[in-house]
Formats: sequence, structure tokens, C-alpha cells
Amino acid sequence: MQAVNIGILGLGTVGGGTAQVLQDNAAEISRRLGREVRVTAVCTRNTVRARQLCPQAAVVTEPTELVQRDDVDIVVELYGGTEIAKDAVLQAIENGKHIVTANKKLLAEYGNEIFALAEKNNVMIHFEAAVAGGIPIIKTLREGLAANRIHSIAGIINGTSNFILSEMREKGATFADVLKQAQELGYAEADPTFDVEGHDAGHKITIMSALAFGTPVNFGACYLEGISKLDSRDIQYAEELGYRIKLLGITRRTEKGIELRVHPTLLPESRLLANVNGVMNAVRVKADMVGETLYYGAGAGALPTASAVVADIIDICRLLDADSENRVPLLGFQSDKVQAQNFLSIDEITSSYYLRMYTQDQAGVLAAVAAVLAKYDISIEALIQKSVLDSTHAEIVILTHSTIEKNIKAAIAEIEAQETVAAPVVMIRMESLHG
Amino acid sequence: MQAVNIGILGLGTVGGGTAQVLQDNAAEISRRLGREVRVTAVCTRNTVRARQLCPQAAVVTEPTELVQRDDVDIVVELYGGTEIAKDAVLQAIENGKHIVTANKKLLAEYGNEIFALAEKNNVMIHFEAAVAGGIPIIKTLREGLAANRIHSIAGIINGTSNFILSEMREKGATFADVLKQAQELGYAEADPTFDVEGHDAGHKITIMSALAFGTPVNFGACYLEGISKLDSRDIQYAEELGYRIKLLGITRRTEKGIELRVHPTLLPESRLLANVNGVMNAVRVKADMVGETLYYGAGAGALPTASAVVADIIDICRLLDADSENRVPLLGFQSDKVQAQNFLSIDEITSSYYLRMYTQDQAGVLAAVAAVLAKYDISIEALIQKSVLDSTHAEIVILTHSTIEKNIKAAIAEIEAQETVAAPVVMIRMESLHG
Repeated sequence: MQAVNIGILGLGTVGGGTAQVLQDNAAEISRRLGREVRVTAVCTRNTVRARQLCPQAAVVTEPTELVQRDDVDIVVELYGGTEIAKDAVLQAIENGKHIVTANKKLLAEYGNEIFALAEKNNVMIHFEAAVAGGIPIIKTLREGLAANRIHSIAGIINGTSNFILSEMREKGATFADVLKQAQELGYAEADPTFDVEGHDAGHKITIMSALAFGTPVNFGACYLEGISKLDSRDIQYAEELGYRIKLLGITRRTEKGIELRVHPTLLPESRLLANVNGVMNAVRVKADMVGETLYYGAGAGALPTASAVVADIIDICRLLDADSENRVPLLGFQSDKVQAQNFLSIDEITSSYYLRMYTQDQAGVLAAVAAVLAKYDISIEALIQKSVLDSTHAEIVILTHSTIEKNIKAAIAEIEAQETVAAPVVMIRMESLHG
Repeated sequence: MQAVNIGILGLGTVGGGTAQVLQDNAAEISRRLGREVRVTAVCTRNTVRARQLCPQAAVVTEPTELVQRDDVDIVVELYGGTEIAKDAVLQAIENGKHIVTANKKLLAEYGNEIFALAEKNNVMIHFEAAVAGGIPIIKTLREGLAANRIHSIAGIINGTSNFILSEMREKGATFADVLKQAQELGYAEADPTFDVEGHDAGHKITIMSALAFGTPVNFGACYLEGISKLDSRDIQYAEELGYRIKLLGITRRTEKGIELRVHPTLLPESRLLANVNGVMNAVRVKADMVGETLYYGAGAGALPTASAVVADIIDICRLLDADSENRVPLLGFQSDKVQAQNFLSIDEITSSYYLRMYTQDQAGVLAAVAAVLAKYDISIEALIQKSVLDSTHAEIVILTHSTIEKNIKAAIAEIEAQETVAAPVVMIRMESLHG
């Protein structure tokens, strides 16, 4: 069979990895696919790198030029961001090119527009590399678990944040110290906001939410809370109580609507997800028939991400000449069955909570706190009270049972209004990972 | 589009689960697939159950009858075993029916014959449910990791054995006691040989080995060693040294050939695989580009297994009218590229080892043991020596570095020949899970 021609937009880390995988594993890939895959064009300003990595490919500097080439069947978009990438992808689709992209931001923010244009132009879009790097979680959601109604997804999907939290726990270090170390190791960007404030995880959980429930992508509905304000004291208290704190992306189907959120989360230490450390990623899926499954691997890096990009290329190659009915639909559901659904605001979600409060060390303080929680029908699962160094104050840590977030916030407001409570209450959500 | 017609051979646990998934999730499945899937015929002697589970289906009692029906597009073989199932599957293929099967024994022992006939008759065979129940590991190996050269697979793929080992560790109980409990809970068969002696895991790792390396299935090359002779003392010593013992299926590509084996294995307790407990399954894959990935979930049970069966049905449905080039090849590699390769005998594998020996408690014993290991160039990673109750004997536990199995066996024979060594040496293989 004829070779398939690839055009790569952007020859950075993942672009370079993709070129390398296609070259180093050319024999294994053609053993699987039955045809050759070759890079015929790349778009980059770094022509030296292009010559090294893809000596056979035409080098262009304008995306517009690449996406119109007759010798390109599949456009691999690896620019990242949305400024250039969006126009390039839309143009490629209009030119009838199939798309492979690792761009989570692009899909989370403009996915609906892109998918609609792809549908109209009858092209495939694959995006395994956009979520959890080399872990084939998109394929799992679109195909592997297709017999299920998916209930919930919870994932450690930002390696930078997970590295920082792992180090904070192991070394008792502060966020600021570990961030600096992560930057030196190349695990965190000079401006780490995108990773540590939950935006990146938010993009990824938004995409998985659409795939799990058959809804349009809805990044606007995603609640984002990062780890930069996390105190290592809370990591220690969590440990004392048998929990670990992880930055989780969570999406869940409830009777009232879909929950979609990113925030630090206490997990029971016995759960596998709680034991995923360093820069590694893991995604836990709960579905009605299969129950709980979990997928673990490298969430970033040139070669793991390229592994996903090239798997997508292979998938597309197999179906280049097939009818559109032979394809898995873009979001795993027939496009006319992708339905807008109600997403819950963060105040409407149901969770259990970790609360830490700094109070005067005197009789009646705990009773008053307990009375407020009881008023809002919030029951207590565990409690630690400790005198602190100055001995005139105490620290109270409470784990609650499940409640609606607006109730816990109202209770916290009342607790903070008490004269004996000397500082804002720290609140961290918990997940038992049962539902 | 027209409905797809399913014929089910065998309406036991998984057959019943399959009927239930197809019925309960009919709406979600058709939302994904764009067409209806209906059970038109079942083959069972239990007509009452058939009427309950598949009220619309024709009920037949002879497999021959079902596999010839015009109103069956896909035959789902859920008999298990090879006596009836093999003929039924071969007949179905000759009648041009596509096959979904959960039958690991059938594929591990007769897969080459079955795949060849399927190729000749241009039908698809999917078998996600044959390995690790609801975990989509077959799809992952055939598609998700297609960009990689796979190095090795290590899996906890027998829930019964894993349950027994987990209980032995937690409760310090013997194999016999926990087996009895497992039988009462329905986790172990009345005759547990197939599970606890490694046959079941052997079938599964044989199938994964073929998919990983593009070889014919080669169950004859699979070394099998079960858990029935495992002493709880060794589980305790392992724990003291920071290890857990798991029954692993292992296959690895080496320069000398392919390793394929099932046996109890010491794993460092910090690895995720070491923390997979109870009846759950997990498969760890090491590949050149993506690195380490791991897949976790329920390895058995009516609904998890049916989740895999129905995912396979959906996959086949999408490609019913497509050309064979549009399909993923049966073993993930083009059939003319599936190559017989050299498989290593157990004596040729490379591993590190746990050794426990019962010796007289006198000067020079340890020196003599160490001298034998040194003679075979086996270096020691860790060692415990303990006096035992009668105080005239000692127990020595040694962890070795990597060596060839025939060397450790020769060393053990020499150690056992020493007069001061009072019982056969216990040998358990170890895996660092680095390669």
C-alpha cells in the first residue's frame, strides 16, 4: 500500500519526539500498519533542527503553507496554545486534512467549533496526546469502556503539581521551595501558573468529561483551584489521618448535573491513586458495568507524548479510505447524540471536607464549632485537636461526612465569625473514591 | 442503520452479564454506535434462563445450529474450555461469522489455528475479555501502544491467586486456610488447580506475549509455577525486606529470545503492582517510547467481563462493512509479519532471586554458602540470618542480584549438598520492575 504522508506543525519537544518515534520505530510501525508512514513536511523556523530530525521533509515557515500541501494527508498540530494553532487546525480541516493534536487548551476551549467543522468536512481528529501523555486514556474512554455508562473520572493529570506535592510530603518542604527545585529540574516552567493553578488539569478533565458523558466540551463550567496556597501543615495533618493530598481533576455524573472541577483533594492512603508519585499521571474511571479501572503512566515528556501522537496517526491511517460510519465518532458518541447537559457550580457539588481552624485554647470552642456544623446537618467523621506552640491557641482539624458545598461554606462563614476563631478556616475537599 | 445481530454461545455467568449489559445500556450503546445491537439467538440448555435474559432471542441447544443462522452476524463464544468451544468457533468462522470470545484457554492453546482460519475467511476475532476481564489491555497492546516496541509485560492476572496471597499476607494465614475461605466466598473453584497452579495466568500472559511481540501464541513455551507450595514464612521475610509476593505472568523480549513465565514473584513494596490487592488485576507494560504504563481493574465477574465482550461487539459493528485493511490485524501485526521467535526455557531466563535456607547454627555455614554463590558469580544484595526456635539451627535469607537461572539452580544444588544445610533451599524469583 501507498505510504501515508504526515505534515508536522511545530518541531519543539513533542514534535521532535514524534519525528524520532516515526523514524526509530519505522519497522515496527509498518509491521503493524502494513504501510509506511513518512513525514513529508514540517512547519518550523528552526530549519537546522528540521534538517536533522526530518531530512526528507519539506520545511516551511508558514502554517498556511503546510496545511494546503497535496503531499500531506494528516496534519499533526504540536504548536500548543491557541493563537496560531486554532487557525492552522481550522484551515487544515477545511483543506480536508485529518488532524492529530496534543493541544488540550485548544480542544477544551474551542473543541466544539473544531469538531463541528471536522464533521462538516468529514475529517478525523485524534487527540490521545492531549490528556495524560502516553496513557491511552482517550481510546479507553471512546472505545475500551464503550459498553458502560461512565459515572465518574478522577485523575492526577498534571505532573508538575504532582511532583511538587510528592516532594512537599516526603521532605516536609514548602510549596515555594519545591517549586524552585522543580524549576531547576525542568519539571516546572518559569511561569508555573498554568500548571500549579489547575488550568492544565482543567483543560484535560474538561476533555475527558465530554468523552465520558457525551456532552460538548465546557471548560467554562470547570472549577479551578490550584496548589500554590497549600500549607505543608495540611499535608502533615492529612498524613496523620491516613490521607494524601493530590491535585485531582474530577468529573462526575449526578442526578442534578455534571460536576467538573480541579482542586487539591485528600485521598485515603490505601488507594492506588494516592500512591502515584512524582511526575507520573494516573486516571481512575468508575463506570456502571466494569466498576473501577485505573490507568497509569508518564503524563508528559517528548517520547511518551509522541507515543500517543503516533498511535493516533496509525489509527487514522487504517481508516483513511473507509466510510465515516466505520470511524469512532469524535467524542465517542454519534455527533447528533452529543447533548448539552447541566453542569453544577462548585457550590452545588457534594463532597466531604477537611477543615483546619486556629482557635483560642479555651473551654467551649469545640462545642461552638460542632454546634455550627450540626446546624447545617454536617456530621463529623474524625477530629484532631492540638495545642499550638504559644499554648494560648489550639488547632482543630475536622473531617466531615458528605455534604453540599454551599452548606460547608455557610458553616465556615459562621465559624469564622466566632470571636474565638483566630484565622480563616482552611478547607480542602476529600474523595473516598467509592462513587 | 440496520441492527446488528448477536448469537451467544453459553449463557453462564459472562453470557448472562453480556445479555444484561446489552439490555441495560442499550440506549448508551446506540448513542455511541449509531445502530442497535440485539441478541437474536442463544445456545443453552437452560431455556428458562434464556427466556428471562433474552426474551426476544431464539433458543437453540446445539452450537452447530447457532453458528449457521442467517440472523447472526457476530458469534459470542462464552462456553470456556476447548472441547465444545473450539469446534463451535471454527464452524462459526467457516460460516463467515465474526467472533467475540472470552476464552483464554482456547486462544492460548489453539489460537494459531483459529487465527489462520479467520484470516482465510476474512472474519474478525476480538478477545478483550480473555485477559484481565474488564481492563482494556488487549486494545491497549494492539492499538494504544502501537507506536512502541514493547519490552516487557508483568501482570497480576489471576484474581483467585491474588486474593489468596493478599489474605496470607494480611492475616499471616496458610495457603490451605485461605483457599478454604476463598472457596466459601466463591473466589475459588472447588478444584482450584487451574487458578492457583498458574494455568489461567499462563494462558493470559501467552496471549499478551503474542500481541506484544508479534509472534504466534506459544503456550507450550510458558513456564508455570503456582502458589500452592508458598510458605507464609516467605511472605513475612519478604515483608521484612520491603517486598510483597505476587503471582505474576511475565513476558520479556531479550537479545537471546522471549521469556514467558508465571510464578510467585517478590516485588518492591513501593511499586503500584505490589499494592494491587484482593481479586483485582493489574498489568504493567514497559515499552521503548512510552516507558512504564499500568492498567488496573476487575479481572473477572459477570459485568466487568461483559463490559469487555460488549466493547468488542461495538468495535466489530463499526467495521462490519469495511475492508479488511481498515481493521486492526488479529494480533496487532500484519499476519504475514507475525514471526515465530525463539522462546527461552526457564533455565535461560535472567532474574534476581530470594533464597531461604535452613542450616545448622554453627561457624562457617554462611561463609560456605557465600563461597558457592561467589563461585557462580552471583552477588548478594541483602541477607538476614536468624536463629530459629530450637536454637541449634538458623535460617538464612538471601536476596541476590541478577543472574541466569541455571546458575542459581546449580548453586542451590551445591548448597543443598552441604552437610550443614538441613532442608531444601526455597527459591522465589524477584522483579525490580525496571526493565
